[in-house]
Amino acid sequence: MIQDLLKSYTSVIELPVLWGDMDAALHVNNAMYLRYSESGRIAYMEKIGFRVAVGNSQDPIGPILAEINCRYKAPLTYPDTISVATRLQVETIEESSFEMAQIIVSHKLQRVVAEVRARLVSYNYQLLKKAPLPEALKEKMLIMEERQID
Amino acid sequence: MIQDLLKSYTSVIELPVLWGDMDAALHVNNAMYLRYSESGRIAYMEKIGFRVAVGNSQDPIGPILAEINCRYKAPLTYPDTISVATRLQVETIEESSFEMAQIIVSHKLQRVVAEVRARLVSYNYQLLKKAPLPEALKEKMLIMEERQID
Amino acid sequence: MIQDLLKSYTSVIELPVLWGDMDAALHVNNAMYLRYSESGRIAYMEKIGFRVAVGNSQDPIGPILAEINCRYKAPLTYPDTISVATRLQVETIEESSFEMAQIIVSHKLQRVVAEVRARLVSYNYQLLKKAPLPEALKEKMLIMEERQID
Amino acid sequence: MIQDLLKSYTSVIELPVLWGDMDAALHVNNAMYLRYSESGRIAYMEKIGFRVAVGNSQDPIGPILAEINCRYKAPLTYPDTISVATRLQVETIEESSFEMAQIIVSHKLQRVVAEVRARLVSYNYQLLKKAPLPEALKEKMLIMEERQID
Repeated sequence: MIQDLLKSYTSVIELPVLWGDMDAALHVNNAMYLRYSESGRIAYMEKIGFRVAVGNSQDPIGPILAEINCRYKAPLTYPDTISVATRLQVETIEESSFEMAQIIVSHKLQRVVAEVRARLVSYNYQLLKKAPLPEALKEKMLIMEERQID
Repeated sequence: MIQDLLKSYTSVIELPVLWGDMDAALHVNNAMYLRYSESGRIAYMEKIGFRVAVGNSQDPIGPILAEINCRYKAPLTYPDTISVATRLQVETIEESSFEMAQIIVSHKLQRVVAEVRARLVSYNYQLLKKAPLPEALKEKMLIMEERQID
Repeated sequence: MIQDLLKSYTSVIELPVLWGDMDAALHVNNAMYLRYSESGRIAYMEKIGFRVAVGNSQDPIGPILAEINCRYKAPLTYPDTISVATRLQVETIEESSFEMAQIIVSHKLQRVVAEVRARLVSYNYQLLKKAPLPEALKEKMLIMEERQID
Repeated sequence: MIQDLLKSYTSVIELPVLWGDMDAALHVNNAMYLRYSESGRIAYMEKIGFRVAVGNSQDPIGPILAEINCRYKAPLTYPDTISVATRLQVETIEESSFEMAQIIVSHKLQRVVAEVRARLVSYNYQLLKKAPLPEALKEKMLIMEERQID
């Protein structure tokens, strides 16, 4: 059943829910969903070679998060394992930005606990401004997404 | 100038940006904006007496976050101090939910670094389901917002 | 080789290192080691049925962390997987406290990246004061540790 | 009274306790004390010009945390404000390392809630190995500490 939920996504990772991810409301803190979601996007980016630029990076161009939307569908609690599924929204690709759709699925609850939509911008971390999305990366993303659809 | 940015908001708190809030991209991590935003909403909630229910709470009804949208306008870096400004969006009040608008303002950059929109649902933490928004709280919120507008 | 490092520990969990666990020094933040270590202790506690008391708990007695010591032996970076290995230090058991020894092992580096020593106190979360360690738990811990040694 | 607790420390910062710093045990999570403590050390380091090296830093030498010990004396809860007080332990200075002593003081509880001891090593972040503590920094630290004692 979880497989059905995940099958339209290109990249899926599994993460443990940690006890310390919960807050005083006794469920996983809202900000932790963004950590899970970030981890899913990073895994996707690594697949296409578009790494988040770090300070000592040779290549200054990497993705930066411009906007995120998270719909919390059900509370997560420890212990649990989640799948974070990520795909490109192909129709959203523009010269220097694109959107990703994600779901977070609880193995314990056997359901989607959050739906995430993230808009990323290709960013030059040295010049501190947006940059055109490298053509090679765009192609890799499209090929990966098409393979998924087939 | 910061005062101008904040003046249409009902509740404003100041927070320090911590060095440890930054990630390997050398600016404040995207999930930390949700921690800042949460802190602003909590401060607002305390003003109207609508506390996040904790496990040992007498009153099981409290707000739960149903959806959040965050637009990242500029990277934050340590050291900095931010103002997190929060208001109710009066027109969004429904029987058991309402939306809040927030901005995060950098004192160093003298500008808005993030715009947040959060939808909260009145939630019964014992029954684990939504509950009507207590009438007294709704009134307090409206009074507080009107006073702000005047 | 990792198996050799872990074999004297009673409870071992595996955790992924997340990109977001790193800070602006480009390695995993020092405080995250305490999250990993906490997760290891919680797993151990669950094995013996000594759960961290949460607000709505029937049983108010649970462990509380009184002191921790962490020796950082090597920097962790994303991507990596770690094993967190935990054991009771049998000789440290007192009426209401005991110490646990832990190591964090990097699969990528094939070495111990941190050594942790934690002193826990049996705590009554309702009365907010320490409580004698329940006899049944003490026995379970000792049995589990002996089995490990054999 | 808080002033008395702090007076033997060279550098003191104030931080708000955030609601989200608490965990499901309904008090501030143990790992957050290390975030507070880190923030105190960073503030001290900035006073003497010994900044944590970040990826794009010109100067590759900065402090790295080698060992930390934290004694939790009392639980912190939101809302509260803390003072984090930091000093060098002059007698611990060696060629490439030194120790710092810290206390975390709760304004609400009017008492020390944690005692921290941290050993830092002067580290070359490019060569990934320890480096002699720059002489100019050692002098600045000593001058700052002496002034405090006088």
